[in-house]
Amino acid sequence: MKRNLYLTTRPVEEAQAIYMEALGDDVSPKAETVKVIDALGRVTSEAVYAKYSSPLYNSAAMDGIAVISSATEGASEASPLTLKAGEDYVVIDTGDPIKKPFDAVIMAEDTQETEGGMIIRASAPAWQHVRPVGEDIVAGEMILTRCHKIRPIDVGVLLSGGVTEIKVFAQPKVGIIPTGTEIVEPYEDPKEGDIIESNSRMFEAMVSEHGGVPCRYDIIPDDYESIKAGVLKALDENDMVIINAGSSAGTEDYTVHVLREIGEVFVHGVAMKPGKPVILAKACGKPVIGIPGYPVSAYLAVENFVYPVLRRYTGLIDSSEKYIKAVLSRRLVSSLKHREYVRVRVGRVDDRYVCAPLARGAGAAMSMVRADGFCVIPQEVEGYEAGETVDVTLLSQAEEINRTLVCTGSHDMLLDVISDLMSGESEGIRLSSTHIGSLGGLMALQRGEAHITPTHLLDEENGEYNISYIRSLFPDEEMVLVKGVGRVQGLMIAPGNPLGIKGVEDLTRVRFVNRQRGAGTRVLLDYKLKQAGISPSDIDGYDAEATTHLAVAAQVAGGEADCGMGVYSAAHAMGLDFIPVGEEEYDFAMRPKTLELPEMKCFLRLLKSDEFRAELDRLGGYTTDKTGEIIRVLP
Amino acid sequence: MKRNLYLTTRPVEEAQAIYMEALGDDVSPKAETVKVIDALGRVTSEAVYAKYSSPLYNSAAMDGIAVISSATEGASEASPLTLKAGEDYVVIDTGDPIKKPFDAVIMAEDTQETEGGMIIRASAPAWQHVRPVGEDIVAGEMILTRCHKIRPIDVGVLLSGGVTEIKVFAQPKVGIIPTGTEIVEPYEDPKEGDIIESNSRMFEAMVSEHGGVPCRYDIIPDDYESIKAGVLKALDENDMVIINAGSSAGTEDYTVHVLREIGEVFVHGVAMKPGKPVILAKACGKPVIGIPGYPVSAYLAVENFVYPVLRRYTGLIDSSEKYIKAVLSRRLVSSLKHREYVRVRVGRVDDRYVCAPLARGAGAAMSMVRADGFCVIPQEVEGYEAGETVDVTLLSQAEEINRTLVCTGSHDMLLDVISDLMSGESEGIRLSSTHIGSLGGLMALQRGEAHITPTHLLDEENGEYNISYIRSLFPDEEMVLVKGVGRVQGLMIAPGNPLGIKGVEDLTRVRFVNRQRGAGTRVLLDYKLKQAGISPSDIDGYDAEATTHLAVAAQVAGGEADCGMGVYSAAHAMGLDFIPVGEEEYDFAMRPKTLELPEMKCFLRLLKSDEFRAELDRLGGYTTDKTGEIIRVLP
Repeated sequence: MKRNLYLTTRPVEEAQAIYMEALGDDVSPKAETVKVIDALGRVTSEAVYAKYSSPLYNSAAMDGIAVISSATEGASEASPLTLKAGEDYVVIDTGDPIKKPFDAVIMAEDTQETEGGMIIRASAPAWQHVRPVGEDIVAGEMILTRCHKIRPIDVGVLLSGGVTEIKVFAQPKVGIIPTGTEIVEPYEDPKEGDIIESNSRMFEAMVSEHGGVPCRYDIIPDDYESIKAGVLKALDENDMVIINAGSSAGTEDYTVHVLREIGEVFVHGVAMKPGKPVILAKACGKPVIGIPGYPVSAYLAVENFVYPVLRRYTGLIDSSEKYIKAVLSRRLVSSLKHREYVRVRVGRVDDRYVCAPLARGAGAAMSMVRADGFCVIPQEVEGYEAGETVDVTLLSQAEEINRTLVCTGSHDMLLDVISDLMSGESEGIRLSSTHIGSLGGLMALQRGEAHITPTHLLDEENGEYNISYIRSLFPDEEMVLVKGVGRVQGLMIAPGNPLGIKGVEDLTRVRFVNRQRGAGTRVLLDYKLKQAGISPSDIDGYDAEATTHLAVAAQVAGGEADCGMGVYSAAHAMGLDFIPVGEEEYDFAMRPKTLELPEMKCFLRLLKSDEFRAELDRLGGYTTDKTGEIIRVLP
Repeated sequence: MKRNLYLTTRPVEEAQAIYMEALGDDVSPKAETVKVIDALGRVTSEAVYAKYSSPLYNSAAMDGIAVISSATEGASEASPLTLKAGEDYVVIDTGDPIKKPFDAVIMAEDTQETEGGMIIRASAPAWQHVRPVGEDIVAGEMILTRCHKIRPIDVGVLLSGGVTEIKVFAQPKVGIIPTGTEIVEPYEDPKEGDIIESNSRMFEAMVSEHGGVPCRYDIIPDDYESIKAGVLKALDENDMVIINAGSSAGTEDYTVHVLREIGEVFVHGVAMKPGKPVILAKACGKPVIGIPGYPVSAYLAVENFVYPVLRRYTGLIDSSEKYIKAVLSRRLVSSLKHREYVRVRVGRVDDRYVCAPLARGAGAAMSMVRADGFCVIPQEVEGYEAGETVDVTLLSQAEEINRTLVCTGSHDMLLDVISDLMSGESEGIRLSSTHIGSLGGLMALQRGEAHITPTHLLDEENGEYNISYIRSLFPDEEMVLVKGVGRVQGLMIAPGNPLGIKGVEDLTRVRFVNRQRGAGTRVLLDYKLKQAGISPSDIDGYDAEATTHLAVAAQVAGGEADCGMGVYSAAHAMGLDFIPVGEEEYDFAMRPKTLELPEMKCFLRLLKSDEFRAELDRLGGYTTDKTGEIIRVLP
């Protein structure tokens, strides 16, 4: 029998690149639908949106009594008030709905039950200890982007959001063929000349750990036709095939000949020790990899050449560190009464990790999905100052964090859309967006805690958006403004407009819900109110703040308010009517060097893509005349 | 309904300690037997020993021809030799057995086939490119200690060593009970006042990820008797029970009352935010944990209180870092032709990680089980000097490495025994022993690359063991010698002594196999040969080296040699006869501060334990008069 000649042995990275290029679109993930309760460890193939809000209704955040806030006015230590059961209060437990006329909760610890009724010693402002509908999850909101590996917390949040089935990447089936005349099964008694077959069992375990489904075949003796038949059968029944061994240059190493006959061999021999005799081939449009027989070589060949192919099928990224150090982006105060776990979002800006605390309520399950980790404040520590370095226990992968574009500023649903598109674009690229309003975002950008800031700040002097704010916050620096979208802002009202609202002039006679201070929407409202000669103090609910467009829409949809201001897409998503008030410019501010980041290049490419525009059209209420234009803002 | 009063809220660590103490022996791991091919991720409950050696026979390490070494003498570039097929050589592939009269392999690349026979241009010394029987795994050798989590590579090595079933810790069954009148299943349509039940599904996933088997029950409404009945049923069917929620102080929080009736509550309320309302209890001798209802609280309560109980059942240690930096303990040379993966053993001596390269052959699967990780030498690097810091990709847990007693020096089977006992002693404590002979070990100790050195070096001047060697290697330092065992050394011969060997005087007429230079056994042999007036050059095989007692015994058992010198236990393990030659002192050298390490205290306690002595008695050939005595060796 002729011995084989190796093709040139290739460096590891080169061999990997050649092979991946050769496999091309033949290896691409397929999607399948699974139950959420069976989805642990699987990877989403498309974004997942909440079906229901959580909580589903206004609910008690504490055990205690539900009261009518106006009826508690004047209660104090000096003049306690006695409330009548059923009329002035009802006893409620955490999670119970708060129904009209009740609108606030007093904690059990702060009440005293007597024969004549319940005594309280402080008044309760409206909405005290009440979780408004959608506080945690808003119906229609994106819960997970695509390419996300399902963790236990995700299972919980998906179900809370009314999602019971999701689409995930299918697990590739991997055929494993042990070959060799001298090979015997482990359960037989070996004789001289026998080698116990153990590699295929190691491969089964390695494939399982990396998200594949192994399918091991019986041992095939060193016979050309038998091997050929076995490989063809395995190719028919699987997404990829591993052959062990016969990948070397011995007299009975048929693998490479078989693969040349039935397919194409791209690499035979890799400059790796141990593990040189690797065969990387394709047959019937599927990957076939010949693995050497020595166990250590076999292990390394699987790690270097089978895992990358599996990752293409499964969308999985390899795990690594569990703990990192990060700079805290704002002050964090805790109590000496307990150890506190604060969920944080982590990004890498320049050479440091930056972590921003998220919602701290125990009910905010979505905050754990959004979080990249926990910052633990020990019981004996009162908190940390902004700029202090803290330890973060990661829930996400460090690789994901390193490839994250940190976006801090104003909220718009288009960020969810781009975030999803980015996750699908390239392995591991992510958009992390934190919503603290336009002005807060520009200040975070100033401190080096964000890559980009979405902003829509109106200069009331000249009617121009964003430029003058950037100039005044970055007086000595050249900055860049990437034009985003034109966005129609308007009043969101119940379907059919039962209260006959026509414009901002009607806000004085309805219950309003506002955005938080610094939000561009609020600046626009103030501008419009000033033009109309209306004082904020005349508006019921001007001080009721919600932090996103969707949260405002959810309150109107839930009947907690009659009207709020926001973008068309949010109104549309929640089935509300919409009265346009004006169009504003929603852009992205950043430092010039940020344009060089691969994540930013990806963001920019997607911003200008047809896919993105189609999605905006679907949402409605956007114009895209200048989208993607780059404006240099000189000091 | 009465509200509950919390017991004092306790700091997290205190609550954990109180609970673990209270659970005591009620929570302890049970063992079960599983097939090796189903054992991935399980944890061994006892040490596992090889049934067969690997390779099972002397076998070719390369593709090429098997030759008779003596018949190749004289071959050179200038005067090539032509060998006759069948008579002077046979063609072999890697792994083929090398049978008599053949005793060496010439690589295919170094031969040239012609009409008249095979031309060779260099002689082949005996055993060139031959893997001797047991080179990778020796029958009877310990493959895994107890408390080891099975990885893919372990599956392969166990099967290679003839092991098809192993004992592992049983996976605890965890009953999960969702409670609450307001709770509905995710597949129902929620109404106002409903809360979608999602926590129990998150718990299922968390329990699975941590080695438990979840058993989720139907939702139980807030009714005292129903909850009581449900908990009792779950206790009957599981090893532990989680109840969610009702752990707080609301009017319908019955959990704590039920648990007080049917068992004992140790903690109610923990100083942790979120996650305060935790109940830690025991009923029917099993742990019952009440978990708060808010999802984030629930997650943290499981992490802090359920996981530690699961770890007691499963023997699992939490994972962490995957990469570390370590100081290389000896020079490592590689080629520019490839990227090389060198398996290393890692330990922490004082404040640094030390890594020692292990066997580099691709066939040495056991070296991957023993290894703590890989040091990768890139293709463009020629190697590293001793003392250089290198990157190590971990296969073991960093926690294991940090709690490892690094033992470098002479080999004895008692190290396997202590290693196994240490693994069972306390979570994560390990003995890592590297076998480089007594003298090599003392030099590693000198360089700060080992904690302790097992040594049995005879001072031929005064007949004393070890002391004078330590003094000369550590001239300026006070050292400590912990007395080990008296060890009978002798000649290992085939059963029935067919060659009639009586003592060292007969070594000149048989095929001998020796230990490596610097090994105490070899020093003793040289001493005895000198006394008997025998020159080493008169002994056939004096230069054939094996590095452990078992490897010597395996060669005699396999018929490769007629006689070797070693300890009784190795002869006994391989079914050989044994002729005592002398008793030597096998002790442990170290610096005084090493005695303070918890791992060393554990080692010392076990060295003096009844369990250890019983095991030595079983092996035979040891005396323990001075075992554990501590001798200060002053400069």
